[in-house]
Amino acid sequence: MAAEATYRRPEIRKDATHNRWVIFSQARALRPSNFKSKSDANPKSNNQSECPFCVGHEHECAPEIFRVPADSTSDWKIRVIQNLYPALNRELNFPSCPSDSSHWSGDVAVSGFGFHDVVIESPVHPVHLADLSPAQVGDVLLAYKTRIDQLRTFDSIKYVQVFKNHGASAGASMSHSHSQIMALPVVPSAVSARIESMKEFFEQTGKYSDKAVDLGGLLKLMLVKMSLQLNNPPFNFMIHTAPLQVNPSQVPSTHWFLQIVPQLSGVGGFEMGTGCYINPVFPEDGCESFERSPH
Amino acid sequence: MAAEATYRRPEIRKDATHNRWVIFSQARALRPSNFKSKSDANPKSNNQSECPFCVGHEHECAPEIFRVPADSTSDWKIRVIQNLYPALNRELNFPSCPSDSSHWSGDVAVSGFGFHDVVIESPVHPVHLADLSPAQVGDVLLAYKTRIDQLRTFDSIKYVQVFKNHGASAGASMSHSHSQIMALPVVPSAVSARIESMKEFFEQTGKYSDKAVDLGGLLKLMLVKMSLQLNNPPFNFMIHTAPLQVNPSQVPSTHWFLQIVPQLSGVGGFEMGTGCYINPVFPEDGCESFERSPH
Ligand SMILES: Nc1ncnc2c1ncn2[C@@H]1O[C@H](COP(=O)(O)OP(=O)(O)O[C@H]2O[C@H](CO)[C@@H](O)[C@H](O)[C@H]2O)[C@@H](O)[C@H]1O
Ligand SMILES: Nc1ncnc2c1ncn2[C@@H]1O[C@H](COP(=O)(O)OP(=O)(O)O[C@H]2O[C@H](CO)[C@@H](O)[C@H](O)[C@H]2O)[C@@H](O)[C@H]1O
Repeated sequence: MAAEATYRRPEIRKDATHNRWVIFSQARALRPSNFKSKSDANPKSNNQSECPFCVGHEHECAPEIFRVPADSTSDWKIRVIQNLYPALNRELNFPSCPSDSSHWSGDVAVSGFGFHDVVIESPVHPVHLADLSPAQVGDVLLAYKTRIDQLRTFDSIKYVQVFKNHGASAGASMSHSHSQIMALPVVPSAVSARIESMKEFFEQTGKYSDKAVDLGGLLKLMLVKMSLQLNNPPFNFMIHTAPLQVNPSQVPSTHWFLQIVPQLSGVGGFEMGTGCYINPVFPEDGCESFERSPH
Repeated sequence: MAAEATYRRPEIRKDATHNRWVIFSQARALRPSNFKSKSDANPKSNNQSECPFCVGHEHECAPEIFRVPADSTSDWKIRVIQNLYPALNRELNFPSCPSDSSHWSGDVAVSGFGFHDVVIESPVHPVHLADLSPAQVGDVLLAYKTRIDQLRTFDSIKYVQVFKNHGASAGASMSHSHSQIMALPVVPSAVSARIESMKEFFEQTGKYSDKAVDLGGLLKLMLVKMSLQLNNPPFNFMIHTAPLQVNPSQVPSTHWFLQIVPQLSGVGGFEMGTGCYINPVFPEDGCESFERSPH
């Protein structure tokens, strides 16, 4: 952690060609991995003695933000901590312009101010999110909400992305069950485009998800079904929300949702070039077999 | 190839939430892979006897579109062929609306009409694009151009994506050196956004790439440097062009370019959620070490 001082400060630059932000952060290069290789579903070791996220190893982690229950000691259920190799820098006295941009010929760059947290979802190594009870899964979702509400108080934070990587080929470097929260000083253009697109869809159809559901139970059900039917695939999930300062005209069409993406096949140059995806399964066929499955 | 008749016809549907097209094509599920696993740089076998793209195995491939040189027999250098497991269907008498969309509640769907071709870049298995001479690499680029000019004659084709997947973790299923060309009846929204963004950048700065270069030589140089310095990484490249029917107001800012993306680290939920990328290397630092390298 002392080494952090020698990093170049992170920076966020606009890629003018693709109209998207890119975060440059040297700290990210140093993060360890406890998977043998990208294709391995199984980590190097399930040995608590090597994992900083396991109970009893709290001192090997970056500082804690809060734990659940709040007054717990070694009987904690969830810990929200700082990421030890953050993509963004949480120091508020950070200059608002990049210090050295002499090499950089682009037009837009902002300092890499922001927050990058880790949510440890279970105190013990082999227990994954899908193994928790519906109420415990609900507590993880509530921990996200609590942290988002804290991050919302910073005027300069414009968007919060909650996401989970499960399995090495879904990008995970740590096998202990966890998710991450990143708070950004910019609104990603994919987010603005999504908000705009949902607004259009809403105006044309009047449709949006209007059901209040027991989300902890539903998320557990989805994770268990996916694990059983697709043989515990690597997956990502993302919580898509509105930007923190949302335009009031967009309120009726803006709702948050959770997207789960199992990694069944990779992507290639076509998807990278066009942003279009190719899917060998029509959704109505996929739904049918999903609905028929045991639960 | 006879089995193709039993597939559901491909369809292209608009994902209203993310404002992007998704291609549904059952044929894609059947394509074979000659890599052992995603993480393997090395294919199962370099044995010509098993590879349909090798010289002497032309009969194991879907029909040829053209070869280079045009009048060659078994001494061909490049073959442009149909993809045997195409994402899109090239039959022109294809209905313009999907036949059965009773299950589909979205608003926009078009039939999966289009072209999906493979460019075999070398007659022999172990020779990769970077091993060819600058002139031969130039011939591959010219083959793309010839094919794009053919595809341009179809009024209903709106965008052509040329791309290459090298290595299993870059998505490749075939290890024999090749690239692909897909001709779409829609303009992907990422392409429209790029064109719009380049137009803005051009209007603000008046800048764009104005150098005519020896592209065959340059591409070879880049591929060789990347292979030497980054230890032959899996990579993708994409040729980004303007849509075929481009708005004249965009002409001065619209130029095509080739983007090479080595797969050095994967992506995770953050990138999937926001479309922003995290890079541990600042571009000016990366350029310096690239420029210092032998060539
Ligand atoms: N005998 C034969 N004759 C003609 N064609 C043959 C053939 N045998 C195989 N093919 C075709 O050859 C192509 C080889 O392509 P690549 O290795 O670049 O990747 P692929 O398209 O499989 O998928 C990658 O690229 C696509 C597009 O980016 C992604 O959707 C996908 O996830 C990723 O794995 C395949 O498309 C296959 O259908
Ligand atoms: N002792 C400790 N204390 C606190 N934190 C610690 C720690 N040891 C490790 N960490 C952090 O724990 C996190 C674990 O995260 P994940 O396993 O979900 O994927 P990671 O962020 O590495 O990268 C994946 O997700 C990101 C974001 O999507 C992609 O950029 C990337 O390519 C993909 O591999 C890492 O970010 C790491 O920095």
